[in-house]
This record gives sequence, C-alpha cells and structure tokens, in this order.
Amino acid sequence: MAHYGAKVVVPIDLKKKPWEQKHPLHNRWHPDIPVVAEVKDGEVFRVEMVDFSGGGITSDYSAEDVKHADQSIKKPWEQALPLHNRWHPEIPPVAHVKVSEVFRVEMVDWTGSVIKDDDSAADVKFIDLSTVHYLSGPIRVVDKKETPAMPGDLLAVEICNLGPLPGDEWGYTATFDRENGGGFLTDHFPCATKAIWYFEGIYAYSPHIPGVRFPGLTHPGIIGTAPSMELLNIWNEREREVEENGHKSLKLCEVLHSRPLANLPSTKGCHLGKIKKGTAEWEKIAKEAARTIPGRENGGNCDIKNLSRGSKIYLPVFVEGANLSTGDMHFSQGDGEVSFCGAIEMSGFLELKCEIIRGGMKEYLTPMGPTPLHVNPIFEIGPVEPRFSEWLVFEGISVDESGRQHFLDASVAYKRAVLNAIDYLSKFGYSKEQVYLLLSCCPCEGRISGIVDAPNAVATLAIPTAIFDQDIRPKAGKVPIGPRLVRKPDVLRCSYDGNLPTTNNPAASM
Amino acid sequence: MAHYGAKVVVPIDLKKKPWEQKHPLHNRWHPDIPVVAEVKDGEVFRVEMVDFSGGGITSDYSAEDVKHADQSIKKPWEQALPLHNRWHPEIPPVAHVKVSEVFRVEMVDWTGSVIKDDDSAADVKFIDLSTVHYLSGPIRVVDKKETPAMPGDLLAVEICNLGPLPGDEWGYTATFDRENGGGFLTDHFPCATKAIWYFEGIYAYSPHIPGVRFPGLTHPGIIGTAPSMELLNIWNEREREVEENGHKSLKLCEVLHSRPLANLPSTKGCHLGKIKKGTAEWEKIAKEAARTIPGRENGGNCDIKNLSRGSKIYLPVFVEGANLSTGDMHFSQGDGEVSFCGAIEMSGFLELKCEIIRGGMKEYLTPMGPTPLHVNPIFEIGPVEPRFSEWLVFEGISVDESGRQHFLDASVAYKRAVLNAIDYLSKFGYSKEQVYLLLSCCPCEGRISGIVDAPNAVATLAIPTAIFDQDIRPKAGKVPIGPRLVRKPDVLRCSYDGNLPTTNNPAASM
Amino acid sequence: MAHYGAKVVVPIDLKKKPWEQKHPLHNRWHPDIPVVAEVKDGEVFRVEMVDFSGGGITSDYSAEDVKHADQSIKKPWEQALPLHNRWHPEIPPVAHVKVSEVFRVEMVDWTGSVIKDDDSAADVKFIDLSTVHYLSGPIRVVDKKETPAMPGDLLAVEICNLGPLPGDEWGYTATFDRENGGGFLTDHFPCATKAIWYFEGIYAYSPHIPGVRFPGLTHPGIIGTAPSMELLNIWNEREREVEENGHKSLKLCEVLHSRPLANLPSTKGCHLGKIKKGTAEWEKIAKEAARTIPGRENGGNCDIKNLSRGSKIYLPVFVEGANLSTGDMHFSQGDGEVSFCGAIEMSGFLELKCEIIRGGMKEYLTPMGPTPLHVNPIFEIGPVEPRFSEWLVFEGISVDESGRQHFLDASVAYKRAVLNAIDYLSKFGYSKEQVYLLLSCCPCEGRISGIVDAPNAVATLAIPTAIFDQDIRPKAGKVPIGPRLVRKPDVLRCSYDGNLPTTNNPAASM
Amino acid sequence: MAHYGAKVVVPIDLKKKPWEQKHPLHNRWHPDIPVVAEVKDGEVFRVEMVDFSGGGITSDYSAEDVKHADQSIKKPWEQALPLHNRWHPEIPPVAHVKVSEVFRVEMVDWTGSVIKDDDSAADVKFIDLSTVHYLSGPIRVVDKKETPAMPGDLLAVEICNLGPLPGDEWGYTATFDRENGGGFLTDHFPCATKAIWYFEGIYAYSPHIPGVRFPGLTHPGIIGTAPSMELLNIWNEREREVEENGHKSLKLCEVLHSRPLANLPSTKGCHLGKIKKGTAEWEKIAKEAARTIPGRENGGNCDIKNLSRGSKIYLPVFVEGANLSTGDMHFSQGDGEVSFCGAIEMSGFLELKCEIIRGGMKEYLTPMGPTPLHVNPIFEIGPVEPRFSEWLVFEGISVDESGRQHFLDASVAYKRAVLNAIDYLSKFGYSKEQVYLLLSCCPCEGRISGIVDAPNAVATLAIPTAIFDQDIRPKAGKVPIGPRLVRKPDVLRCSYDGNLPTTNNPAASM
Repeated sequence: MAHYGAKVVVPIDLKKKPWEQKHPLHNRWHPDIPVVAEVKDGEVFRVEMVDFSGGGITSDYSAEDVKHADQSIKKPWEQALPLHNRWHPEIPPVAHVKVSEVFRVEMVDWTGSVIKDDDSAADVKFIDLSTVHYLSGPIRVVDKKETPAMPGDLLAVEICNLGPLPGDEWGYTATFDRENGGGFLTDHFPCATKAIWYFEGIYAYSPHIPGVRFPGLTHPGIIGTAPSMELLNIWNEREREVEENGHKSLKLCEVLHSRPLANLPSTKGCHLGKIKKGTAEWEKIAKEAARTIPGRENGGNCDIKNLSRGSKIYLPVFVEGANLSTGDMHFSQGDGEVSFCGAIEMSGFLELKCEIIRGGMKEYLTPMGPTPLHVNPIFEIGPVEPRFSEWLVFEGISVDESGRQHFLDASVAYKRAVLNAIDYLSKFGYSKEQVYLLLSCCPCEGRISGIVDAPNAVATLAIPTAIFDQDIRPKAGKVPIGPRLVRKPDVLRCSYDGNLPTTNNPAASM
Repeated sequence: MAHYGAKVVVPIDLKKKPWEQKHPLHNRWHPDIPVVAEVKDGEVFRVEMVDFSGGGITSDYSAEDVKHADQSIKKPWEQALPLHNRWHPEIPPVAHVKVSEVFRVEMVDWTGSVIKDDDSAADVKFIDLSTVHYLSGPIRVVDKKETPAMPGDLLAVEICNLGPLPGDEWGYTATFDRENGGGFLTDHFPCATKAIWYFEGIYAYSPHIPGVRFPGLTHPGIIGTAPSMELLNIWNEREREVEENGHKSLKLCEVLHSRPLANLPSTKGCHLGKIKKGTAEWEKIAKEAARTIPGRENGGNCDIKNLSRGSKIYLPVFVEGANLSTGDMHFSQGDGEVSFCGAIEMSGFLELKCEIIRGGMKEYLTPMGPTPLHVNPIFEIGPVEPRFSEWLVFEGISVDESGRQHFLDASVAYKRAVLNAIDYLSKFGYSKEQVYLLLSCCPCEGRISGIVDAPNAVATLAIPTAIFDQDIRPKAGKVPIGPRLVRKPDVLRCSYDGNLPTTNNPAASM
Repeated sequence: MAHYGAKVVVPIDLKKKPWEQKHPLHNRWHPDIPVVAEVKDGEVFRVEMVDFSGGGITSDYSAEDVKHADQSIKKPWEQALPLHNRWHPEIPPVAHVKVSEVFRVEMVDWTGSVIKDDDSAADVKFIDLSTVHYLSGPIRVVDKKETPAMPGDLLAVEICNLGPLPGDEWGYTATFDRENGGGFLTDHFPCATKAIWYFEGIYAYSPHIPGVRFPGLTHPGIIGTAPSMELLNIWNEREREVEENGHKSLKLCEVLHSRPLANLPSTKGCHLGKIKKGTAEWEKIAKEAARTIPGRENGGNCDIKNLSRGSKIYLPVFVEGANLSTGDMHFSQGDGEVSFCGAIEMSGFLELKCEIIRGGMKEYLTPMGPTPLHVNPIFEIGPVEPRFSEWLVFEGISVDESGRQHFLDASVAYKRAVLNAIDYLSKFGYSKEQVYLLLSCCPCEGRISGIVDAPNAVATLAIPTAIFDQDIRPKAGKVPIGPRLVRKPDVLRCSYDGNLPTTNNPAASM
Repeated sequence: MAHYGAKVVVPIDLKKKPWEQKHPLHNRWHPDIPVVAEVKDGEVFRVEMVDFSGGGITSDYSAEDVKHADQSIKKPWEQALPLHNRWHPEIPPVAHVKVSEVFRVEMVDWTGSVIKDDDSAADVKFIDLSTVHYLSGPIRVVDKKETPAMPGDLLAVEICNLGPLPGDEWGYTATFDRENGGGFLTDHFPCATKAIWYFEGIYAYSPHIPGVRFPGLTHPGIIGTAPSMELLNIWNEREREVEENGHKSLKLCEVLHSRPLANLPSTKGCHLGKIKKGTAEWEKIAKEAARTIPGRENGGNCDIKNLSRGSKIYLPVFVEGANLSTGDMHFSQGDGEVSFCGAIEMSGFLELKCEIIRGGMKEYLTPMGPTPLHVNPIFEIGPVEPRFSEWLVFEGISVDESGRQHFLDASVAYKRAVLNAIDYLSKFGYSKEQVYLLLSCCPCEGRISGIVDAPNAVATLAIPTAIFDQDIRPKAGKVPIGPRLVRKPDVLRCSYDGNLPTTNNPAASM
C-alpha cells in the first residue's frame, strides 16, 4: 500500500517492456504488490507511465485503419504530354499560354511514382536518382498580341490555386540511404526511411508518425524558366569546379556529409520531353542539360515552402517564350527540407496566371556576379498560409558535434538547431527518425537569427506547437506529469549496409 | 509641345541634378521649350520624374524637425549597481530575485553611451570595441524556500514587458569601419555609417532613412546565465583554435570578411561589476573571462529578434544561483542583424519573471557535443509580435559574387539574398547604405529555405511591405509609374581610410 | 501659368464630364489656357484629377475581357440524388456515411441556377423565393459499428476541404427588390441589383465592381441536422407568432424593413428529396416543413463566414442518423451578409468528416429556453483563413437615420456602421450600390463592440484595406492626392417599381 | 477489485464534497474498498475525478500569494490638472498640444479609485454612478502655426503607446447590482460581483478566476472630442425621449434589463475640470452637460477593444481646439464588455500624436441623420494586437430565453451566444459568475454573423482557447478525460437585496 507524499520519481525507460522496467509495472490491484516508492505528505512527485497497453498499441492508429492509396498514376513516359527532367533551352514547349489567362498544370510526384504507398522503405533505399525530378512543361508564354516573353523580361507567375491530384491524395516523406542521396543529417541517420501521409482536405496525417496532424502549406518544390545556353554553361562550369575540387577547398564537407557535391549532366535517366531518345539531338542535349537538384538563377528547385496559394513569383526570362516548367509538388514542407526527400512528396496540380513585365530583369533584378545573368527570383507571399500563434524554438550555434568552432557558418548552426529539436521531441514518445522526417515536412520555420557575432552564427528552428496532440512545451513540473505515450508504429526503415562513419554524440541522451 | 502616345521613356538619373539629365528638366510652361520625345496614340509610356524640388528636399523630413535626444544617461561605471562586460562564473551577483516575482532590470545601450545622437558617424568609426557589451547583472535566482538555482537546472525566464528607458526614447543603427568591427557586408560597405532613430511609442522613424516607419519587435540582444569554469574553458579553447588556425582551414573567410575571427579574453576595456579593477582577483578574472560578442551555450548574444514581450526562454544553469545577465537592448532588429551594430540599439528595461525547473537540463536539453555542457537554450515566442500580412521576398543561392559555387553554404546564400534586396530597394530612391542599415533593423525575416539540394543552399529574406510609405512591389507597368523620389538626407557616414580590398560586382546597377 | 504655393483646391466632381467641371480640364499644353488658381510659395495644395481618359474607360476591366461562365449545371430536380429545400424529420436520407471517413458533398447554388451569368438583374428582381435554399442531403451518419447517431448526441463535422464545383468557377452577389425579399438596407436600396464574380483560384474579381480582388473565405451558408417533430413545432409556432403579431410588438421593423417577418411553411416551391410530389406524404410534410431562411437550433442558414476549411462544427442531433444537410455555398461573405443575396453565391463541394460524441448535447450544449431542444451549435475556427493585417473600421451607434434614439439595439447600430462605410467608400470612385454588394461579400468583420453603455449599442464594421487596388485610408493631405478614378462599369440593376417609402438621409453626400 | 473493460462512467458532481459523491471517493488503497463499477475488456470508459485535494485547494493560486496592490492614487479632485466627468463645449482645456508632437496623458480609473483591491464587492454594490467616468482633458489641439483645430476638421489621433500607470499595475472587473447599474445579463446575474486582476507586463491574472492568464489588448474605453452646443442639445433631446417614452415603445427592454434607459444630465456627482463648483457657470453647465456613459457622435465611451497601440482614430471636431478628452483605461476587454464594469478597469497613461485634417469631416465622414453633426468616428487597427490562432465559437439566435421569437435582433442573439458560452465554460470547473466576468474582459470577439435571414439574427462569440490552462474544446472521449478541477476561490460577491424578477432558464444545467 503506497502512501502519497515523498518526492520521488518512478521512472520509465521507453525502450523496455513493462516487465523490464526498473520498477516493474502491474496491471491488477492487489495488496501484496510491493511498494516501489514512498513519498512524504505535501510534496510534489512524479510518476511516469507507459500507455495503457504497455506500448503494444497506440492511441491514434490501428493497423486495420490503413488503406493503401490507389496508385494508378501513369508513368511519366506514358503521359499525353511528355515530361522532362533536365534544364536546357532546346527542350521544346509542350503548351503555350497567354498572359492573364488562368491555366492548369498537372504533375506526377518528383520520382515519377517510384516511391509507393506500401510497407517497406526498400524503394527509397534503391531509388535511381538519375531520373529526378520529373517536370511538367516547358510552357511558352505570350502576351495578348501573341508576342512571346523575351530574354530580359520578367515573368510574374501567380499561383491561383494548387493541390493534390484528385484521386491521388497521399504522399510520402523519406530520407535516403547515406550512399544514395543522403540528407542534411545523413551522418546521424544513414538508413533509408519512409513515412506515408494521407490527406483529409487541408490536413495530413501519417500512420508512421502518430500523434501529429497539420494543415499543408502546399507548394511546388520546383518552378523555373529555361536557361539560355550561356547560363547553362555557367552552371555546368561552376558545378564541375566544386565537384572536382570541392574536397580540398570546402571544409563544410566535414560537417555536412551529403553526397555527391554536385550532380553534373548525365545521359543516364535523362528525359527530354518531346525530343525522342536515341536521336542525335537527344544525345547532344542530354550531355549538356543541367540536373534539376539545386535551385539556381532560373528559380528551379528552390524548395521554398511559402510559394503557395496566392503567392506571386517574378522569374527572369532567358529564352524566347520563357519556357516555364514546374514539378515536385509538396503537400507541406519545413524550411530546409532537411531529410532531402523531406517534404510530403506527391503528385498534384497548379492553377497559374502569368504576366510579362517587359524589360523587367533590368528594372527589378540586380545581377550579383560576373554577368547580367547572375540574378535570383523574387516573390510575394500569399494571404492564406496556415496560421499558428504558438511556437517552440530551438537554437543552434556554429559549433559542430565534435565541439569544434566554425566561423559564422549558418549551415552548421542550423544543423545543430535541428539536432537539438530532434532530441528534444524524441523525449515525448517519438523515435528520432520520426522527428527527423516530421521536421522535414511540417510547417516549421528555419531562421538565420544572428550572422555577425563572430565566431558564432545563430540559427533557430521554430515549430508550431498546435500540430501535436500533446503539449510539447517544457513544464515546471508542479503537478505529476502525464503519461509518456510510446508513439508506435515507427517509420519504415531499411538497414544501412555501407561503412561510412556516422557522427556520434557521446553526450546525447539514449 | 509633346503629343501623348508613343512608348518612350524619359529617363531620370538620380545622381544627376535636374539640369544634368539626358533630357534637361523644366520648371516653367512655355511653347518654346523643345520636345524631348514623341509617343504614338494609344501606347503606354513611362515618364520618370525627380521630386518637385529636384531632389533638394524630401517629402517627409525637414531639418528643423530634428531635436536631438537628451543624452543624460550615466556612464556604465557611474551606475549605482556596477555593470560588467565579460562572462565569468566569479563575477558576483548584484541582486537576487525569487521565482514567480516580477522584477525590473534596466540597462544602458551596449556601448555604454559611446554612440551619440549627433550629426557624425565618427563615434562609430573610432569606437573601442573592447568595452562591449555592457550587461546588467548578474542576478542570483532562488526558489520560494531561498534555495538557489543549481547547475543542471533550467531557468525559465519570462519576458513580461520591456521597452526603452523612459526619457531616453531614441536609438541608432550603424555599421563599423572595415578595420574596426566590420559587418556582414563589410567588403561591400567598408565605411562607418550611422542612422539615428526616434521612437513614437511602438513606432520608430529615422531622419536618416526617410520614408519608413515601423513598430518595434523590441528585445534584449543578450540574455544569459554565467558559465561554469569548465564551460568557460571550452569556449576559450575552441575560439582560440579558430582565431589561430582559422585562416588556413575556413574558406568561408574568403566570402565573409568580418574581422576578427574571434575575440579572445583581454583585460583591455574589461569591466567586472563589483570586482574592483586593479585587484589580483580582477586581473585573474579579466584574463579568463569570455568576451560577450558571440551567442553560446549560455544564451548570451544570440540576437534573436523574437525574444520579445511574452516570450519565455529556457536557459541552462551552470553555476549556483544561475547568475542571469542581460543587456544590448534592441528596439527592433532584422534576422541576422546584418550590419553588426545593426539593431536599433538603445538603453532600456526588462520586466522578468523566473521559474526554476529542477534538473531541467537533463530533462529538456540535449548536449550536442563532447560534454553535457554543450547545450543550447530553447524558447517560446510571445503573443504580441507586430503583425504583417504582405511580404516581398528575396532569394539567394550559395554562389558568391565572383560566381564561384559553394557547397550548401547558408551564410553565402543569405549574403546574396541580402545583396539582392539592397540593390532592389535602392531603385526606390534609397541609397544602398540606407537599405543596408534598414535591413539590419527592420522586422525582416531571414530563412534557410533549402539546405539539401546540393550544391546550392537557398536562403530567403522576407521584408514586410507595410513599413514603407510607397508600394515597393514590382509592377507590370500598365500605367505610367509614379515619381522616383530621392530619399534625402542620407545616413551619416565617414570615409574608409584603409586599404583592404572591397568586393566589386561588375554587373550590378549603378 | 500657375505659381506653386497657394493653398487651393482644384476640385473635381466625379459625376460631371471633364468639360463640365468647375474648372474645365484641358488636354493640351498652351500658354493661353487660363489660370484656374494661384497658390503661394511654400504652401501645400491639392489638385484633384480625373483619370487620364476622363472617366471614359477604367484601368482594370474592358468589356471584351468578359467571358460569361458556362452554366451547364443541371436543374435541382434533374440531379441523380434529389435535393430538398425544407427542414423536416421525415425527409429520407439520400446517403449514409461512417464516422472518420472523409466524404464529398456537391451542391447547386442556393437558387438552383435561377440566377445567371448574364447582363441583366431581371432574374434577381423576379425570382421566386419559395424555392430556396436547395440543400444536398440528408446524410445519415453511423459509427463504426453501424449504430446511427441518436438524438442527444453531438455530431462533430470537420470541413476538410471545400470549393467551387470544378468547371463552374463563378458566382454572384445581389440584392433583391424591396417587394421581393429586400435586404438589410432595402429602404435605402430598393432596386434589384447584381454583380458577377469570376474566380482565379483563391481570388474573386467582378467586372461589375472593378478595383477590388480578394481571397475567398469559402464556406457553406447552410449546414444543419434535421429537426425532430417537437423542434419543428416549436419553430413553426414561434415564427407564426412573430409573423402574425410582429407588426404591433416589434419596433425594430420601423428601422429594419426586410419583408416578410418570417417565412412560414408553404407547399409552393417545396422540394422534399426522395418524397414524390403529389403523394399524401408529400402534402403532409410540405405543410409542416420549415423554410430554410433563418438559422435555428439545428444550425441551418447561420451564414457564418468562418465555417471554412479546417473548421469543426458541433451540431446537435435530433433524429436518428442526424440527417445532415448542407447547401448555399459562398465563395466569400462579409459578416452579416447585408445585401441578403449577399455572399458570392455559387455551386460547390464539401469534403467532410464526422464524429459522433455520444450524449454530447447534454455534455456540451446548454438548452437556453423552455425545452432541452433550445440549444445552439458551437464550432472551432480553422487555421487557413485569409490573413489581413490592416483594417479600416467604421462605427455605428443605435441612433437611426431619423435621429431617433434606440435602446442598446445592435441591429440599428450595425445598420448605421454599414451605411457609414458605404458612404465613405463611395468617395473613392465606387457607386453606393457597388459598395453595398462589396460589403456583403468581402471578408469584412462586423462586431458588437459595446452592448452595455445605455442607451447606445456600438457596432463596428472592419474592412481589410488590402482588397482594394488603391489606398482607401484617410490622408492628411500633405501632398497632392492622386486621381480619383471613376469605377466603371457599375452593378447591373433594375428599376424599383413599388411604392414603399425609402429612407432619405438629408444630410448625406450626393 | 475492478477489472478493466466495461464502458461505464464514474461521475463526479462538482458541487459535492468527495464523500458526498454518488460513488464516494477513496484516498487509500485497500482490497476491501468496494468496487463501484465494472467494465468489459476493450471498451473505452470514462472516470471523472476531483483534483487531488478534493476541491479544497487549486493548482495555481494560494492565498498567501495575494499581495494587495498599493492604492495610493490621488483622488480625482486632488490631481494637479482637474478632471471632468461630463461632455460640454464650455469645459475649458487643461493643456494644449501641437500636431506631430507625441504627448502623454495620464488618467485615473473610471471611478476615481472608488473600487478597491480588497476582499469585498461592497464597493461595487454601493457605488455612486453619478460620478463616472473621470476624464483627463480637455486638450486643445493646434497646428504648427498655432491655428487650432476648427469645427469641420477631422482630428487624427494616433495611439503611440499606452499602459497602466507605473506603480499601479492592477485592475478589476465587476458587475453591478441589478438596482444600481446592472449589466447585459443583469436579469441572470443580479448580484454585485468583483474580480481583481494583477498585471505581469503584458499579462493579467486574477486570484478570483484561477486558470486563465492572457495578454491585454489595452485601450482607452473613452476618447472623444467636445460636442458643440448644437450637438449637445441633440443628445439631450433624443435621450430624454427614450428615457421618458422608452418603456412603451421599446420591446427590447423586455429582454435587455439594464437600467436606467438613459442617463440624463444631473448636477449630482458632476465634475467640470477648471470650472469651480458653486459658481453660476458651474450650475448652468452641469445642468446641460451630457453624461459619459454611451458612445456618441464624438466618439466617447465607445468601448472598442481594438483602439490599442498603433491604432489611429479619426474624430470629428465640433469646437475650436477639438477639446480632446480621454479616460476609462482598460487593460483588456471583450467585445461588448458584457458585465458593464466589464473590462479590466485601471488607471493608465496614453502617448498620443495628433494630426488635423482640415475640412476632413466633409471629406471623409458622412452625416447619417438630420444634421451634418450626425457622424461617427472611423479608425485604423494597430499592428500589435495579441495573436491567437485557435478559437471556440458560440452561436446565438434572436430567440430569447422564454422561447419567444424576435425579429433580426442582434442584441438578443448576442445575449444568447453569451449565455451559451457561460454555461459551456462552467462545465470546466468555473462558476458562472467567473465566466461572466471573464467574457467581459478577455480578448473575445463578438460578431454579427447574420442579419438578413428573417426572423433570426445570428450572433457569435469567439473565445481564444489559449487563455485557458486546460483544453476547453469538446472531445470525442476516446480516452478517459482528465480531472475536472474545481476552480477556487470564486469571484467576490454580494447578495442581491432587490426584488426585480430574474430570468430563469428551466432547461439549463445546474
């Protein structure tokens, strides 16, 4: 018989079964069950609990509730209008639109349906990344008098509406194997993992990350205009330089372990829209055409989560007609998209409206580099982003996990902020892999807070607390803190079979 | 006599006087004034104009309106409770507070009144930075039974209220000379500059940056607990390492030119609160005590603009009593505080309330590094931040001004986003120095948007459009665009007398 | 030749042609054009202008841009699942759903396509209101074990998504003729009027109200459960009472001139879903079934603009299965829906998810009246409402247009706030009819600000300034204020052929 | 010994002691304690609990924590600048200000310190309301050339900052006795009650309403210009009319029981600033001067909670100099201020800045009534209102508590929405009096949602859920719902000794 009172903790180790706990649990009442702790009258005490099933099941998900999505989207090469997965000025337009008219663009998910709604992460582990991203377009834009957008113009693209493809309302978040794509924290999390998300209108939930549900800030990961040959050459040259010499010159690689350093043009996996494979033209273009991975001067894969409903993007025009392409729809994404395949990736549609600002590049954009082509797009944020009022924020400074000081390095600082957040949230019943995927795809904000106070950059990661079904804020512990639910099931995951070193954090919990 | 109609531009060069323009201006009507352009019927055309005075005066500021602030704040060393400007566990508390009680802390500006509300930037140029930042505290925190906060606890500090010191409602934003402090863009802007801001309740305006006015998201740039000797040693060691070996190993220095790499302990300019200068104790501590420039594990100079009214900061406790210090009040600051002396710096007060979460470091913070001391604070954002709904956003990628590719470097990407924004806004009548200071201190948001799409990090800078008295969004130019007002006066500035190289952007405007 | 300086006003009367102005305008430069005013050096002065065409054309609309919507929606009685336009417990369900599953409901516009996208308001003037509102449903709701919702339960309906019917993206806002429906201000605006809106994704614009464009806060005007016979009898009795005795007892009718006082059951225009017209059952039910005009205990036509994406409505259940019906989709609506047919009315779809809270009526709702059925729904607001940060607000007090004092009457106060706003906005180039329709359908907020300071209730109407293409805030007139554009065309309107008195406001402008 | 499983409820009646419950509680473990319920395996069940003390104490307040505020504010008549509590053109200014300068106005609480921070509501019950509201001013406003504001001008008053008087950071919310002031629900709550609030910077909390804490949207309840004699006569005439004839003509009085109908001029309790009592001038003015209770054409007691930091109010000018007065500071208020003394009433200060818009009344305001003086102010909302993202909303329709139908009466509808909210929240451990006061003073929003759907007006009351320390949303009851804490202590209250009838709601809970 336990007396209330003494300030003690009945601890729970979430990795142990109920009968393996320091104080074994009981599921019957009986006077002979021995006392595990005594407390004094009036004192505050804490009792930790497993959930009522002992971690065997969870409160908000049961296996029978999962209905895998219908996955009948046609392959990229079966689409009526052929897709492409490279940037090149000579990929011919598949459609043309006039300014002021609202038009609709539909798109497959970025992998072209390689990743499935199934019970394994093997598709993620073994994906052939030479084929990404499948883009819809190019779309030629003309004014009311049929004069096309011209180099030097600015193309204002308003996102009037967007969403999942009707009938295909699901998505996935994943992290690649360290040897095949990696991610921002691949040295900490080298395994391929996957979580499936289902959509209920504006909301997404995942059977693999129970206990969270949030409205999507849906956006295309990629939207951009075709580069001119001059710009394409600039890209290829500077990226080849970093690929070839990067290991020597760039110390950041010691901390950010993503590989490869750059993705140079390759004919492998290449799709060029209306240009038929096997032709000489195809061979030439495929050898020159830029991969779609990084964001660049043309916009491209900028992965900016705020390019959502009502936003307006001002893209530079480098070729006649602008040749707008878009793809890589995200139901939702956190700033940084840290796990790399990190948004809630899906197929989808856009409803767009274009304006041409004649001569707008010179008028509104400033080249910042050796040529007038070294520009970046600008955009306005739309008025219907999800609204959160309470945020829990994690800081990181530019000291890496080994304790080494870096100089004003915002990437290192942000890595540390994300690691801090993962560890913190894992105390609330999630696995670290669950949190890593969650912070990739939920509407969290990554900020460069301080960039001048040498030697430390300070980055922050702000997480809206309303996406959780529990209160994740620190508490002063006045009254007994409630059950620590074990969040199960977990993300789908594969083994990591490589032998690259992982980053150990000797001081971390668990 | 000009016929309306033809699509022509009557251009204005804002650096020229009215009579120096390509098409000289006139200020009388007369039939003999020659035609400068002809336009065809029905076409849209553009006419650029100077303001009605030819740039001689401006619309929203007249010299007679300036009343310099009363600047009667006592010197730091004259204050009743002595201030300190170093971190060290042995700086004795000047006050103690109990949990749950609201208490008030007042503070001088970070330089201790060295920067004046006058008509010159000379004080900025020649400042002795060895004396910054002047902090109020340390404050010892105890619980209701007088037991102090202990190492391993978490100190929850709620910012109940804050503001300028009554009677001292003004501030300044500045950028240091490249040889004496520099800033994020010191290679572009090597001169010392200064702008004075006056406060009207929640709003700030500057005679040196006319045409903007905004509500402050006021916050302390520095809030932190005292380090233990163990933590202090870690700091000094890792920062000495970067100072001594940084030039060889850190390529980022080729792009981010701030100097020095770190600020190691020095007795010069040191203030240690109640410890009398000249004593052996003072000498010992002054040699060990950490400078206050960077944010670190104890919080410190994190310069996070969201630590405002209603926010709650969870600081780790390293010494008995926590020894909380705070200073460096900012009326407002943009993410990154890019010009270094970049917030609206001021004196001020805080009303704080503390709670002690016993054992909270282990419970809520994860060390990320070699020791359990390698932690970072977390915080909750308060509910009364200024509310903006419309933002213009600038992108930057990790390609530097020379066109060189960097690998996932968010600092380089953010530098480019800021440069893009400065150039863009300078088209609206501001000098680039005005915009540089403005983006340092207005409530703009710096985001890490993409950090995985090798080789480009994508950073964004979002600026609330409502702070301007003109519409700064790009326009499609349907109707004649209004006058480009020259915003005068300009920021105060000194010459740069050094000979470090500056970064040239050959493709930039002007 | 005008000298700069003297404080004068060159006024423009927008109802006059350029050559009819007090100071006739000129469109050529010539020294002989006579001076119209002299100003002194240094003074601020104001010049009013017409737009560059003299009001003949407008900046944002040309007749050739109008493409009338395709209007091929089937008639209500042609739909596969029959619609209904009355509330009655015996209208049989047309579908049933399980809790937790997301389902889709499509609906015609409230009039069943009577109002057309054409160039006349005649359809509005002569509409037969006995047929409104056409509702989709009833839908029977059961739990996972197929047990239906039961009286006393609470039905939690989450609006997961909603929008216009694909292919039918247009809507209308109208005000009825004073003798056939009227509206909140029918005594001021007795004519039938109509404006057509076209949708561009989240945005709506109208050729009849140029110069505004706004994102929709889309919602169903009607969502409710079927009443029990007991509740239905309560409704019919109390509404008959007001219809029969209202004129004598309700002084509010002297100020709010809407007619009729209530709409009692009538077989005319009645549709009862699966119940065949002409049967005895139909006759019986049609005589008993409540009209759908007012919101009541079951929810119904509550016209709450915040019942949008992500909101969750807790509806009381009065009959087995709940028998949920919904209709009257609004692309957007202002608080109060003042013009009566005042939202942007459209066809549309809802994606819904239901939960049953067993016994929830007793648990969560309080009857406020003679029986346990006298309850009202409650709801939670969703997270993706359009976000505005700047509002211009108009006050009204409970003194009517004749100057008579009413006692704490919020309806009178709100009427005055709306009248104040209409008059104010009409100064910016709109007709009063345009503003009346605009305030009915844009996302403006109507507040009961003060309800205790006898004898005046204070109501306020807050209008987001961002929906206008001009700055509508009052200005201190420091510099010459820009052109007052005449907003043309105007709303479609019919004559008022009745002879009810209109309210004259002798002191009003124009 | 209870087996887990069967779906049962162990109910708790919060008005009973632990030993009086249907199933008496136990505070020891013993096998002989009899089973109170059996549950079947797998079923969800609910157990209600008292808090751990059996309701004897609460979690967030202990009597020893209360430190009554220092209440050393001088009496109104002791102030250096005399206050006034009437509106009249001949009350002379006590100060004058120039446009563009920021000036500070301090004010006592509306009762002039009659209501105390003590342990009784007797001061509320017996208050002499003839003396309210004490106003600071009048303030004469002149332009830069010393020309005063003139009748017909518009006075733009920007609220740059505001707050409690330093050193006097507390306030109170109260409801008057039904025979001495009453309130919106005085027929339901006839007793005088009082709650004291203490301020912690932006937050307020009350020992009398435990479990809530919220940031204030601080504002002056009263701000207005002096009326001209012509306007004053209009006020006195129309209010006399309603006072004398109101009972016959205004049916609303049967539902809204506030007394008296109006407050006509009276010499009793009158203060007229610099005009000495006892003089002939004082007698004349006191007989004419309008009471300050209602909001009117001059602004006055409009009690609009959004007139906070950064808002800008455009007030009509009726007398030379404008004669601006202000008072009745509210730390926070809900829309409607339902309990009458319903905001958090306090002393305070304003920092204001004025502009004069010459001729602005004609330019921007429209008279709506028999004379050009029948206008209402307009205002812009400021940018730093507290930000909430989650709201629970209660509906009300214009059917009163007796079940009687009213015609489009928003006051009746709002009364019902408030009653619904009070009853709902009282289920979470609060007394109804606590909720009544809370809804008067917390930042809740009262909306006129539907005003055209005859015969029902629909009003809504939206409450931000973040102000509570518990989740107040309805729940589907999947898992056992946590303890229902009894919130103690309660508000201070007096007996009601009158014999006016109260409204009974036979169907209400409890």
